[in-house]
Amino acid sequence: MTTTVKAYAATAADQPLTPTTIERRDVGPHDVLIDIKFAGICHSDIHTARSEWGATNYPVVVGHEIAGIVAEVGSEVTKHSVGDRVGVGCMVDSCGECEYCTGGEEQFCVKGNVGTYAGIGKDGEPTQGGYAQAIVVTEDFVLRIPEGIELDEAAPLLCAGITTYSPLRHWNAGPGKKVAVVGLGGLGHMAVKIAAAMGAEVTVLSQSLKKQEDGLRLGATHYHATSEQSTFQDLASSFDLIVNTVSAVVDLDAYLSLLRVGGTMVNVGAPEKPLSLAVFSLIMARRSLAGSPIGGIRETQEMLDFCAEHHLGAEIEVIGAEQVNEAYERVLASDVRYRFVIDVSTLD
Amino acid sequence: MTTTVKAYAATAADQPLTPTTIERRDVGPHDVLIDIKFAGICHSDIHTARSEWGATNYPVVVGHEIAGIVAEVGSEVTKHSVGDRVGVGCMVDSCGECEYCTGGEEQFCVKGNVGTYAGIGKDGEPTQGGYAQAIVVTEDFVLRIPEGIELDEAAPLLCAGITTYSPLRHWNAGPGKKVAVVGLGGLGHMAVKIAAAMGAEVTVLSQSLKKQEDGLRLGATHYHATSEQSTFQDLASSFDLIVNTVSAVVDLDAYLSLLRVGGTMVNVGAPEKPLSLAVFSLIMARRSLAGSPIGGIRETQEMLDFCAEHHLGAEIEVIGAEQVNEAYERVLASDVRYRFVIDVSTLD
Repeated sequence: MTTTVKAYAATAADQPLTPTTIERRDVGPHDVLIDIKFAGICHSDIHTARSEWGATNYPVVVGHEIAGIVAEVGSEVTKHSVGDRVGVGCMVDSCGECEYCTGGEEQFCVKGNVGTYAGIGKDGEPTQGGYAQAIVVTEDFVLRIPEGIELDEAAPLLCAGITTYSPLRHWNAGPGKKVAVVGLGGLGHMAVKIAAAMGAEVTVLSQSLKKQEDGLRLGATHYHATSEQSTFQDLASSFDLIVNTVSAVVDLDAYLSLLRVGGTMVNVGAPEKPLSLAVFSLIMARRSLAGSPIGGIRETQEMLDFCAEHHLGAEIEVIGAEQVNEAYERVLASDVRYRFVIDVSTLD
Repeated sequence: MTTTVKAYAATAADQPLTPTTIERRDVGPHDVLIDIKFAGICHSDIHTARSEWGATNYPVVVGHEIAGIVAEVGSEVTKHSVGDRVGVGCMVDSCGECEYCTGGEEQFCVKGNVGTYAGIGKDGEPTQGGYAQAIVVTEDFVLRIPEGIELDEAAPLLCAGITTYSPLRHWNAGPGKKVAVVGLGGLGHMAVKIAAAMGAEVTVLSQSLKKQEDGLRLGATHYHATSEQSTFQDLASSFDLIVNTVSAVVDLDAYLSLLRVGGTMVNVGAPEKPLSLAVFSLIMARRSLAGSPIGGIRETQEMLDFCAEHHLGAEIEVIGAEQVNEAYERVLASDVRYRFVIDVSTLD
């Protein structure tokens, strides 16, 4: 028996999101029904709502930064109990059998994992995301949100948190390492917090010094404006790792010149247009240019535990559901410090 | 007291190389005088002889794939003795004090190492390379050529060998790893031999199947033509490591699609023009695009020892010095299997 829940949906690429209701599937033996309390607004939501990443199947309820409370569990569920504080990120299922799924890296599932929205669930129905009162998710894709982080500040960790934690962990950010974070937005501000908590020396590279005070407060030791050409001269060959959170076109060769021998620049955002790259920028100092998507479920849990231990939540602006369209415009104008989170109780 | 030796020099960007004589410095306390027996022809030699990598200071004697016999040692020399089989690669000196030099990675010397030719030696004189009867080199930059490789087949190892060995070692080519080598030329044929000897499963990706028989003989298990579009479909997500030895413009995104999750494409050659790169090619499977130059002295010795142990020399065509200009044209036409080596005795 499905459950009808209130939601905010996109109905066409050029239309604002509007209130609606959607059906959530019956709670199967391995399923968890979550009362959603908060849903973060990720730039990906906007891309999908507006068909900017290929044609979207409308109506779609986006949102993959979900925090809530377990309301019901299936008969076989062992990992979660009613009343637990839980989260859901960008994936709600995967094949469970391939080398990546069995290795805990479901983000690389060879059959393709099931996106939290705009995917096709095992029931053959389009998946609908977190701008809704509730969601039903198989228990393996439900994360525990430990005490130590408020649910509203935890929501953005499910995408912005793991997307920055994963490459910082993979490329060994930590004591003795100099890490630069390019861009201080939703992802960038989490990268600064997490890299600093890992013990790295963090530098923010931002277009201007407008957010310098924030950057230093969040954990950066240095802050430089990339609009100043001297920045690239002064910081040449400085960093072990650069995490580029900017989706705009950047001068890759200029940023690569900031890496030490053997350093890596990892991109977690990508512009739609191809970039220009002089291969010599890589060769002479054995540099690498890499990319990283979200993390697997195991690593996402590790990230949540790490953030709770270090009391790292996202910096958020909580809004009512009716403000979502206005919030989208402000995201596009980079006018948010640093993540909008929808208070889902406002759907009532 | 300097020594006058016969050599072949470039005198201008648009002139053929011609016989000449050059002076070698007096053998200092830490110097080794080497009777050069063989000198490989590297594409870099041509770039320098023709001022294609910036204005060259003429006359210049190129050649940084040098194999010979120690003829004299300075009073303080401990590492080499008269009669030893030795080699010299792309560097003849470095600062010796920076973190990279003290770590055995002189290729990354922060003050810049001294190139074997077209550099400035500690004596303030331009360095002159291996197309000559003899060379004087500080003992720390002289490599031992073990028994097990002939001197003529060893010469190309000093550049082509180490330039492919270093990334194969750095990115862990070995048993269980699938390695693709792009291009079967001077560097590519060594990459195939070395990767196979390391235990990796080697695939050659070449424009055509023209050299397929050679590729399989050298150690590859598979050989595919990149001119066939089906190659890129058939081999999607196949390789742990791609070593790109081609200096021509390539479709980076197409090659990156051949990498497994977490795979690396490392470039050891670079086109003069920047390439186009879609960052999404990196993100979704956490791929890396890297570059690698030569190796340090310690690793170069390790490579020579490895090659001797596995009886890996370069595949060569030995020529007289008077054929060098003709050989240059054939290198540019990719008409050599797989490295020209000058028999320096023909300078007499």
